[in-house]
Amino acid sequence: MKKLINSPDDVVKESLEGVAAAFPGRLRVSFDPPMVIRADAPVQGKVGLISGGGSGHEPMHGGFVGPGMLDAALPGEVFTSPTPDQMQAATQGVDGGAGVLHIVKNYTGDVMNFDMAADLARADGVEVEAVVTNDDVAVEDSLYTAGRRGVGITVILEKICGGAAEDRRSLQEVAELARRVNANGRSMGMALTPCITPASGSPSFELADDEVEIGIGIHGEPGRFREKIGPASQIAERLLTPIVEDLPFSSGDRVLAFVNGMGGTPLIELFLMYNEVAKLAERHGLTIERNLIGNYITSLEMQGCSITLLKLDDEMVRYWDAPVNTPGLRWGA
Amino acid sequence: MKKLINSPDDVVKESLEGVAAAFPGRLRVSFDPPMVIRADAPVQGKVGLISGGGSGHEPMHGGFVGPGMLDAALPGEVFTSPTPDQMQAATQGVDGGAGVLHIVKNYTGDVMNFDMAADLARADGVEVEAVVTNDDVAVEDSLYTAGRRGVGITVILEKICGGAAEDRRSLQEVAELARRVNANGRSMGMALTPCITPASGSPSFELADDEVEIGIGIHGEPGRFREKIGPASQIAERLLTPIVEDLPFSSGDRVLAFVNGMGGTPLIELFLMYNEVAKLAERHGLTIERNLIGNYITSLEMQGCSITLLKLDDEMVRYWDAPVNTPGLRWGA
Repeated sequence: MKKLINSPDDVVKESLEGVAAAFPGRLRVSFDPPMVIRADAPVQGKVGLISGGGSGHEPMHGGFVGPGMLDAALPGEVFTSPTPDQMQAATQGVDGGAGVLHIVKNYTGDVMNFDMAADLARADGVEVEAVVTNDDVAVEDSLYTAGRRGVGITVILEKICGGAAEDRRSLQEVAELARRVNANGRSMGMALTPCITPASGSPSFELADDEVEIGIGIHGEPGRFREKIGPASQIAERLLTPIVEDLPFSSGDRVLAFVNGMGGTPLIELFLMYNEVAKLAERHGLTIERNLIGNYITSLEMQGCSITLLKLDDEMVRYWDAPVNTPGLRWGA
Repeated sequence: MKKLINSPDDVVKESLEGVAAAFPGRLRVSFDPPMVIRADAPVQGKVGLISGGGSGHEPMHGGFVGPGMLDAALPGEVFTSPTPDQMQAATQGVDGGAGVLHIVKNYTGDVMNFDMAADLARADGVEVEAVVTNDDVAVEDSLYTAGRRGVGITVILEKICGGAAEDRRSLQEVAELARRVNANGRSMGMALTPCITPASGSPSFELADDEVEIGIGIHGEPGRFREKIGPASQIAERLLTPIVEDLPFSSGDRVLAFVNGMGGTPLIELFLMYNEVAKLAERHGLTIERNLIGNYITSLEMQGCSITLLKLDDEMVRYWDAPVNTPGLRWGA
C-alpha cells in the first residue's frame, strides 16, 4: 500500500484538519464528533440539509458543504457509517427553526444510524425528515445493503435540494423534491481497478489485468459481472442500457447526465466517456440539458466510472442552476 | 493497460469531442487543427491568452478556457507538443486588437513551436508576447528540457493573468505580471506510481512497491532521487524545503500554496498533504493567504502530488480573487 498518509488510524482526522486549514472562513470543522459545518450555520428560517457516510468518497460529502448545498456533513471512518451522536449533533447545529432534512445513502449502517439520530433529534424538538437514495440499478441487494445502493444521484440531489432550501422552501417541500429526484434518477458504475482502504492495506478485490467489473459499488462491493475490457463505447453501453430501461426513460425526456470518476481515473478518460454517453443518449432520444463530469463520489483511488441519469423537470433545472458555493461545486453568484 | 478509451490513436480527439458536447455554449472546439476556444473570442480590446502543450495533463489547459482565464488552449497528442500551425491559428482567433500572450511551459518542443508560431503571428501583424514558465526546482535540465521544467505555477499564472487581461491591462503589463508570477513561484513533485501513455501501453518507469520518486516531472521524467515511502509529513518536507530555499522565501512572506494531485490521487490524501504543507509553512514563518487543492496539472492516472508556492503581492491577490468561469476553475460573478 502506497498512500500519502502518516498512519492508517489518522487519515480521516488529518484530512479533515487539511479541510479546516484550507477553508477557515467558509467551513467550521469539529473533531469530537467529526463534522464539517457551514460557517454561518444555523441559517435562520432555512431548512437545514445534512448528509454523511463513510470517508473515502471525497469530495462527497464534506466538499459539498456551503451556501446552496449542504449545511453539514458527517464523515465516518473510511467506508464506515458515521454514528448517531454525530448526526444528532449536526442536526441540532444546523436547525434554523425550519427543520432538517437527512440525506441518507441506502447502506444498512447509515440507514440505521440516521434513523436513530432522527428519533433523538425529534425528541429534542427538531423537525426531521429523511430521504434515502437508492439509485444504483446494478444489484437489488448487496454486501452492505437491503435493496439498491445509493450512489451518484446523492450528489445531484444535494445540489438541487440545497437550492430549494436556500429558496426557503418548507421541509415538506424540500423532502418531496428530494424523493422525486431520487425516484427519477438511476446510476450504474464500473471499475478498472480495486481500491485499498488504509486500515486493510490490501485491495478490496482482485481483477485480472484485462478485466473490468460492471456494476461495482462504491466500496468495491461486487457488481453484476466481470468481463474482458472492451472499448469505452461498449462500457458506456453496458452502464447506460440498464439505466435507461430501469426507469424507464423515454424518447423526448430531458435529462441531466453525470459521468463520475471513481477517484483514480483522469479527466481525459471521463470526457471521452461523456462523449460516448452523449451519443447513446441521443440514440435513445434523450436530450441532455445539464451535465456534470468529474470525480465527485469516489472510492479512494479506484479507477473506473459511474453514470447517472436524472429525468429533469423545470423545478429541478431551476435549483440545479441556482448559485452554489462549496469547495466541490461552485457557480453562480 | 486498462483505460476508458476506444483506441489509443483516438484518445485526444474523442476526449475533445466530449468537451465539445459538454460545454456547447461556453467553448468552441475545433479539430483541424485541435483547439479549445472561448465561445465569445476574440474579445475586442482584451489581451488574448493562449497556452497549450501535450494532452494528458487535464484539466490543464483546455479546462481553463473561459472568462477570467485563457482565451484558447492547444492540445497536442498525449505528452507531445502542439504544432506551430495550431498556435498560429489560435493566436489569430483570439486577437481582439490588444495583442496575444503565449504562456509556454519550458519543454524543448513547446518552446520551439511557440517561438515559430509567434514569428508567424507577428508576420501576420498580431502583437505577441511570450512567457516561459520554469518553476520546477527538482532538476536543472531534464529529459525534455534545457533548464528547469514548467509545472504548477502555469495554472496559477493563467488564472492571475487571465484576471489582469479581463481588467483590460495592456499586453506589456500582462506579460510583466506573468514573468513576475513565474519568478516568484517554485514547485516540486513526487510520484507513488508511474502513468501509462495510451500509445506506449506500458508504464513510463518502474517503481518498487515501497518506493517513491521525489522530484518527478509531469511526463514521468526522473526526479532527484528515489527512497522508501515515508509518512506524508516526510514527503511534504522533501518537497517544501527545496522550494522554500530556492527562491528564497523568507519569514513573513505571504504565499499562495497549491497542492496538486498527479491525476490518480484521491482528495482525501491531497487534503492530508495540505495539512502537512500548512504546518511546514507556519514553521518557515510563511502566511498562506490563498490556496488551491486538487488535480489541476496531472500526468494521466499517475498517483502522487506536487507542491507550488507563490510569493504573493497585492496585484496577484487581486487578480487571483477576480471572477473566473471555466470548466476547471469557477468562482465569483
